[in-house]
Amino acid sequence: MTAPSPHRVIIVGGGFAGLSAARALRKAPVRVTLIDRRNFHLFQPLLYQVATGGLSPANIASPLRAILKRQKNVNVVMEEVVEFDVAGREVVLRDGVRIPYDSLIVAAGARYNYFGHPEWEQFAPPLKTVEDATTIRGRILTAFEEAEREADPALRKAWLTFVIIGAGPTGVELAGALAEISRHTLAREFRHVNPADATILLVEAGPRVLAAYPQSLIDKAQRTLQRIGVTVRTATKVTNVEPHQVTVDAGQGVEVIPARTILWTAGVQATPLAGLLARAADAETDRIGRIIVQPDLTIAGHPEIFVLGDMAHCKGKDGNPLPGIAPVANQQGTYAGKLIHKRLLGRTVGPFKYFDKGTMATIGRAAAVVDLGWLRIGGYLAWLMWLFIHLMYLVRFENRLLVFLQWAYNYFTFNRSARLITHPNDDR
Amino acid sequence: MTAPSPHRVIIVGGGFAGLSAARALRKAPVRVTLIDRRNFHLFQPLLYQVATGGLSPANIASPLRAILKRQKNVNVVMEEVVEFDVAGREVVLRDGVRIPYDSLIVAAGARYNYFGHPEWEQFAPPLKTVEDATTIRGRILTAFEEAEREADPALRKAWLTFVIIGAGPTGVELAGALAEISRHTLAREFRHVNPADATILLVEAGPRVLAAYPQSLIDKAQRTLQRIGVTVRTATKVTNVEPHQVTVDAGQGVEVIPARTILWTAGVQATPLAGLLARAADAETDRIGRIIVQPDLTIAGHPEIFVLGDMAHCKGKDGNPLPGIAPVANQQGTYAGKLIHKRLLGRTVGPFKYFDKGTMATIGRAAAVVDLGWLRIGGYLAWLMWLFIHLMYLVRFENRLLVFLQWAYNYFTFNRSARLITHPNDDR
Repeated sequence: MTAPSPHRVIIVGGGFAGLSAARALRKAPVRVTLIDRRNFHLFQPLLYQVATGGLSPANIASPLRAILKRQKNVNVVMEEVVEFDVAGREVVLRDGVRIPYDSLIVAAGARYNYFGHPEWEQFAPPLKTVEDATTIRGRILTAFEEAEREADPALRKAWLTFVIIGAGPTGVELAGALAEISRHTLAREFRHVNPADATILLVEAGPRVLAAYPQSLIDKAQRTLQRIGVTVRTATKVTNVEPHQVTVDAGQGVEVIPARTILWTAGVQATPLAGLLARAADAETDRIGRIIVQPDLTIAGHPEIFVLGDMAHCKGKDGNPLPGIAPVANQQGTYAGKLIHKRLLGRTVGPFKYFDKGTMATIGRAAAVVDLGWLRIGGYLAWLMWLFIHLMYLVRFENRLLVFLQWAYNYFTFNRSARLITHPNDDR
Repeated sequence: MTAPSPHRVIIVGGGFAGLSAARALRKAPVRVTLIDRRNFHLFQPLLYQVATGGLSPANIASPLRAILKRQKNVNVVMEEVVEFDVAGREVVLRDGVRIPYDSLIVAAGARYNYFGHPEWEQFAPPLKTVEDATTIRGRILTAFEEAEREADPALRKAWLTFVIIGAGPTGVELAGALAEISRHTLAREFRHVNPADATILLVEAGPRVLAAYPQSLIDKAQRTLQRIGVTVRTATKVTNVEPHQVTVDAGQGVEVIPARTILWTAGVQATPLAGLLARAADAETDRIGRIIVQPDLTIAGHPEIFVLGDMAHCKGKDGNPLPGIAPVANQQGTYAGKLIHKRLLGRTVGPFKYFDKGTMATIGRAAAVVDLGWLRIGGYLAWLMWLFIHLMYLVRFENRLLVFLQWAYNYFTFNRSARLITHPNDDR
């Protein structure tokens, strides 16, 4: 009377790739175990809005169990993976539990790369988790509070100097939001300083902001950033980060910038799980630790192991690796889920093809740049598109409605209500 | 050419009392300094909803600067008060700054009282700050996650046992919300345990829940709690709290209850600032550290020092001290602000009189008890009243709308979206 035991799929990571893979398997005769250290899926593209007090963490995070509650073939496990037993086809959890698999999907994401200077992280925090976001939010708001109470003009200026290192989409969006906060949100809230006097410095080692975008949009973005009060310093390398200052080098000798708030959004690398898996499966990795995958997103020699999203080095049409963005992760997850389903039906599937729907970034209030390939625009219309698309992709309906209302409120009142300085280790 | 320097008012604490006092002074010829350790006003009556994932912290917290930005005679200072120099009429801040005053209003609130056992706090966290609320939220959600993965039935039962110590309004509301989470919100989200099997124990040393309410409402509340799955244990003293168990004594010998989640909502005491002020101003305090105030809310012998809200022991009509609830604090703040204004105009003001608009408490989903004196009801209508009144009192319009929508969503879907387990000290 025993039914044939179903094909067992383990998915490591409940981000865009892992969740898409789980959903693509909803009608497949499989038993899925989704493993994540956190109990929620995080909509990372909007994390900078939490860091700048525009949204609450719960607005952009949905419990994984709630998302998957109706998909009966999925079991969610909240735990950390510490080992891949590739020969025995088991994943080992931190508490020692071993979970067997027939197919394994690993999509545990990326983190920031401090270019060999891990000690910089404490002075220039990254923006990857909700805790990072609330920490940064606290630091930004505290800086204005400290400036308000500081009598020494030099120190006051240091408190009002915000340096953002890395001018990719996250850096640009963070700088734009900071400009909006200092120029609009905090206007008239202080009695001794004018928040609009804040210096917002966007430092980029490369020659341009938003390096992956076409030149016409980059020009628009640079102009917009300058108009709203962000000082853009491209071709400027960071050579040191200390508690209260950043040292940069733009080719004419080093310059020390006193700043009490330094934020890091430069360069990414795969999470340590990628290295763990690469060693276990004898897989090749690239310079930033991503696993180089086959055209079907599996590891060479291991057709049962898929690597997706920011952890995967997957070549695009032009031969360059695909960028670490949500659409790539979503499409890869769907592909891997479907491939596993089709394999079980005895069918074959062609290689993964990324369909590029375009990229976009906001630059503060009512301004964005959008590159859809066939359409490249900046300004207000681009911002409306950005708004619409991000709302559409927010996972749960309720979040969509609440985020929309929060944005409408923020837009019309210039206010941001989620401006809480919270203290993780506080006995108050 | 020097104008007469305006009367200087210091308000310590941006809670209900402090904020009401500041607002009552908006047309007075004074210069107000509002000092708070936090940068936001917290709507404490809804804090239990943050602890149970129904609302986000920012929904019930508003930045003090934003609330007061249009009131030009107020200066907000985010800092801790460490000393009252009553003779010199100065308040000393943690960073050594001394701020002079002509009138001083102290309204720094209360905290929980562990009845001489401060070591219990780490095992049975209190619910007073947003950090407390997110900590409790994490513990509750983690307990279900651990139960899901626990093989040992006894341990699984301990993970699914929630003990709430203290059956005042906060304890009752917390127990009701926990019942709703386990019976409705988490239904069908787990594969190995049924969250509805959770034991929710409300332990109260006194003879009744909601001691301050009339007996008919208490009976309604007890019946409702039982109906929704809360086990009420009145006349039961807690004699010990350990990491994984609570020891109680109901008069028939001690009983040990294994439980992995223990929450504390029993008894309050004034914050340490009350003791500091009492010593400095030679003021009398009561058993729980509150300062005994004159009929005009000042300290005997110090007509320039007002003590308001949870820190004040202020007798009501019946001779008993007024309860530590928001309406008392609001009315006291308004009274003190007006009194200071009238004094400056050379007028006198009668003693403070509390106008009792009634009390209310929710008991889980669509049930509440309301006592307005002339009206005592329970059930659905009481719940609608509770809803309406709490929405009306939420400080900012936007919060009102967002909270209303969040509640509507929670009600119709049985879901709670702010279910994040966050880690304060996490390097993940």
